[in-house]
Amino acid sequence: MPLSLNSSIKAILRTKFSIEYTCARTLSGNEVHNLKRILNPPTNDNLKERNYLKYAAGLSGLCLGLFLYKHKDLKRNVYAAEVETAGRAIPTLPTYNISEVSKHSSKEVGIWVIYKEGVYDISEFVDKHPGGDKIMMAAGGSVEPFWMIYGVHKDPHIVSMLEQYRIGNLDSTEVEKSIENVFDPYHNDPLRHPALRPCSTKPYNAEPPPDLLVDSYITPQYIIVIFHIFYVRNHLPVPEVDLENYELEISGVGIKNRTFTLEDLKNLPKHSFTASIQCAGNRRSEMSKIKPVKGLEWGPAVIGNAVWSGVRLSDLLTDLGVTENGEGKHVQFEGLDYDPSGSYYGSSIPLYKALDKRGDVLLAYEMNGQPLSRDHGFPLRVVVPGVVGARNVKWLSKIIISEEESSSHWQQNDYKGFCPSVDWDTVDFSKAPAIQELPVISAICNPLPGQTIHLNSDGKLPVKGYAWSGGGRKIVRVDLSVDGGKTWSVAEFTDQGEAEHSRHWSWTLWQADIPVPPESDSVEIWAKAVDSSYNTQPESFSNIWNLRGVLGNAYHRVKVNIKKRK
Amino acid sequence: MPLSLNSSIKAILRTKFSIEYTCARTLSGNEVHNLKRILNPPTNDNLKERNYLKYAAGLSGLCLGLFLYKHKDLKRNVYAAEVETAGRAIPTLPTYNISEVSKHSSKEVGIWVIYKEGVYDISEFVDKHPGGDKIMMAAGGSVEPFWMIYGVHKDPHIVSMLEQYRIGNLDSTEVEKSIENVFDPYHNDPLRHPALRPCSTKPYNAEPPPDLLVDSYITPQYIIVIFHIFYVRNHLPVPEVDLENYELEISGVGIKNRTFTLEDLKNLPKHSFTASIQCAGNRRSEMSKIKPVKGLEWGPAVIGNAVWSGVRLSDLLTDLGVTENGEGKHVQFEGLDYDPSGSYYGSSIPLYKALDKRGDVLLAYEMNGQPLSRDHGFPLRVVVPGVVGARNVKWLSKIIISEEESSSHWQQNDYKGFCPSVDWDTVDFSKAPAIQELPVISAICNPLPGQTIHLNSDGKLPVKGYAWSGGGRKIVRVDLSVDGGKTWSVAEFTDQGEAEHSRHWSWTLWQADIPVPPESDSVEIWAKAVDSSYNTQPESFSNIWNLRGVLGNAYHRVKVNIKKRK
Repeated sequence: MPLSLNSSIKAILRTKFSIEYTCARTLSGNEVHNLKRILNPPTNDNLKERNYLKYAAGLSGLCLGLFLYKHKDLKRNVYAAEVETAGRAIPTLPTYNISEVSKHSSKEVGIWVIYKEGVYDISEFVDKHPGGDKIMMAAGGSVEPFWMIYGVHKDPHIVSMLEQYRIGNLDSTEVEKSIENVFDPYHNDPLRHPALRPCSTKPYNAEPPPDLLVDSYITPQYIIVIFHIFYVRNHLPVPEVDLENYELEISGVGIKNRTFTLEDLKNLPKHSFTASIQCAGNRRSEMSKIKPVKGLEWGPAVIGNAVWSGVRLSDLLTDLGVTENGEGKHVQFEGLDYDPSGSYYGSSIPLYKALDKRGDVLLAYEMNGQPLSRDHGFPLRVVVPGVVGARNVKWLSKIIISEEESSSHWQQNDYKGFCPSVDWDTVDFSKAPAIQELPVISAICNPLPGQTIHLNSDGKLPVKGYAWSGGGRKIVRVDLSVDGGKTWSVAEFTDQGEAEHSRHWSWTLWQADIPVPPESDSVEIWAKAVDSSYNTQPESFSNIWNLRGVLGNAYHRVKVNIKKRK
Repeated sequence: MPLSLNSSIKAILRTKFSIEYTCARTLSGNEVHNLKRILNPPTNDNLKERNYLKYAAGLSGLCLGLFLYKHKDLKRNVYAAEVETAGRAIPTLPTYNISEVSKHSSKEVGIWVIYKEGVYDISEFVDKHPGGDKIMMAAGGSVEPFWMIYGVHKDPHIVSMLEQYRIGNLDSTEVEKSIENVFDPYHNDPLRHPALRPCSTKPYNAEPPPDLLVDSYITPQYIIVIFHIFYVRNHLPVPEVDLENYELEISGVGIKNRTFTLEDLKNLPKHSFTASIQCAGNRRSEMSKIKPVKGLEWGPAVIGNAVWSGVRLSDLLTDLGVTENGEGKHVQFEGLDYDPSGSYYGSSIPLYKALDKRGDVLLAYEMNGQPLSRDHGFPLRVVVPGVVGARNVKWLSKIIISEEESSSHWQQNDYKGFCPSVDWDTVDFSKAPAIQELPVISAICNPLPGQTIHLNSDGKLPVKGYAWSGGGRKIVRVDLSVDGGKTWSVAEFTDQGEAEHSRHWSWTLWQADIPVPPESDSVEIWAKAVDSSYNTQPESFSNIWNLRGVLGNAYHRVKVNIKKRK
């Protein structure tokens, strides 16, 4: 698969997004600084700056109350009305001071927290908290430092849920004190392409516009040789890695501990292949229309396709003496990104996938022929093709061979699928397996919902999109309908790559010209894909709804208006 | 996985089917003969009888006109009314004799055939024939000898379709002549368990009653130690194999020809594992309710689970020097069953599946600890776990390493999936890949459709069934609804086996007690399964309909009546 970045870039330069944004903006001083960093990827020399990572790690050891932020910096205008009223003093309620609140930090005496001027008793909520035990870090103090780390909480839904547990007001003279000495752990995140649409900014999570996405088979690493439009899914602040001190440590059952510098890894045989990576939450915003779910409100573009280069994990582990019949059943990965409790992002995959030469698990240091960018895991990330993005750990620091899966929150209490009737009162995360391979999916990327479209001269509607399936299963067909499934058109594949059926890690780009019933003013386009195991997509989100809003692979349905030619 | 045949047999003995049939029938002389054969599996000694295979092979070389059957033997009462009137003389049409018809045997002069007293010009139909070129064997003569081999044609739908091409009558004095000298190639098929429900008898194709099916995890090879209830899917007459002359031949690109007797194979390391095999047409009868399809009208029990024992194909091929990076991309299998043109049943799988130790492809000589029965491939069959039944070739005689897939009809022009809008006028079999791995499926086996059910004392409806997925993907959840998907219950797994997620070749048996809305007189039960790649089933057959009626894995929906307790 030859890289055609230049032509991709040219194609994208023609889109309104790039032109609009690159012409319209004047870069700030800080942006210029970051721009230089991106144009000149970090090296041993220019990374000898203050090591945010260690600084923050020390701070996080102190746990509660150290990551405070200035209330006045909050950009209120970006939040919905619920956020505005929540946390304000309510005259009819009793008043508490910080020391009284701080006494309530265990289940025995009740768990209280502060949000702005509000005091809340969340004792009954802690067991339902999607983030698990982490909520206890805020017990007896303000939740705001933690909401800064886990920006997803700044959702009107969550704020109004918190308000249900309201028991009082914080002493008005102590409100500033509860959130002073701000340190924003996200201050050093990289600059991103303005065409990316953030779902959250802290941590930074963003997807490109769908129609831009399918303009090229290899999702451009850089547009105008500066920015990525490959979606970004960060759980925590982006670590800034000092290559001079960077080491990958490999340890676990049945092997001796070993460490590798990036240079060590680059001296091993280099492999490259093309693979798509997709977030389990891709298309979540469609699922949440059925019934709200917890999670970032993603559109259909939380997927990208790239050429990855690096060291085969199977080679590395085999050299270290790891075998399928020896000790260990899982391979755990740990990143350098960590939360306020000092827990690093972590995840694991089954050992057989890691050892399988046909599994193609890669320790990648290059993306589309360039060093990884900071948002995509500089200097080293795992690429587990065919498997959910969450296992493709970025800023990789540790590999651990173990008998058990990773015990991390993201392996055990997130990224799992449940029955539509399971809610936060009844969910038992131990009952579902951690998502590994993802199911077959497709999306219409052009036209966009609500667009008004001219039909082709032959009266047909041009449609473009992508399809993909996990586990290396190649897409074998994409069907499209504009009449509610009465008739279907088969899409033509415009780019699919050459990989064999069982190792087809890349997506398939497709297009179709669909006959539209005469006199139609509008149509709803349906897309469904079939993969090489002849699995196909479920029809609607109703029966695959799940409380975390993952695995949203129902038919994609896009309504557009038809403009008659005169 | 320990075998518990005895307990399985006991369980099944308790069912009404076994008791009813074993008590009610007196065995005929021929049945006693066959019974002895089944109780004493064929050996070198007792198979030195007339070798039907070679006899029939010689006959088939003569091709057209040799497999004629006696018209008077046709059991008319089993066919629908259309079959009764089709083929009768129509006074208004011209009359032809056999020699006139025989001149029309090519596209140039037109293709005529005889059916009973009717003469037909099928020139326009031959390109649409689902069986491909094979139809040309009947050109210029009677179709009846071929319909005896391919019993599927005795479908009212097909007979009435033929009638559309009617051009005349056969001279009444020649009707007997056109079908005389009958030789029934199926005369030597084995005796089968009477509880099996035949979908066709020539070739024999049958499935067990669904509720009997899920009574045991390992589908019993024998009930009352005599008969199988594991479904039977034969394409052609069952060959009778003389072990003394039996050889497996392995040849192809990059290797020297080798032959193995069964004894040679039994001297190699023996492996056993449990795997389900499923026909691509399982549940076809539900799909054909949307719109007719061509194929056997299967219910939901064309699947079974067994312990298979034999030689690992990967071991055998590796010993012969076959490697993934060498020559060859496919492994073709050929059976000893053949059609009137002398073509043997054939199929192929990708070489990587055959070589993959984790792929578990087996040359099996035992099923549930017993020699294979004749219906299941005595003395040797391929078991390709996770892959459609059609590739699990029975009566295996040849393995061929090749650059291309098998060119057989069943690989190229059958067992493929298409878009719902593709019909027999537009289908292009080269556009779809041969089915290998099958998609996720489930079925409700108890209660049966239309049954009247007592609720449990707690007002819940007890339901049992199976779920399975291809490619070694384990079932992770089965959801059930009795209110049209408003609420779902999660089934409990009663038996799933211990295999790991990626090599979970067996089905999962499940049960559930579903809350039923009070005062319901009847409910429709829905079942859907989720596999370890989190693929799930499509909701309905409408949008997965395909002209061959394969891959019918929509939600299973069973309507039952509720009987109130007094």
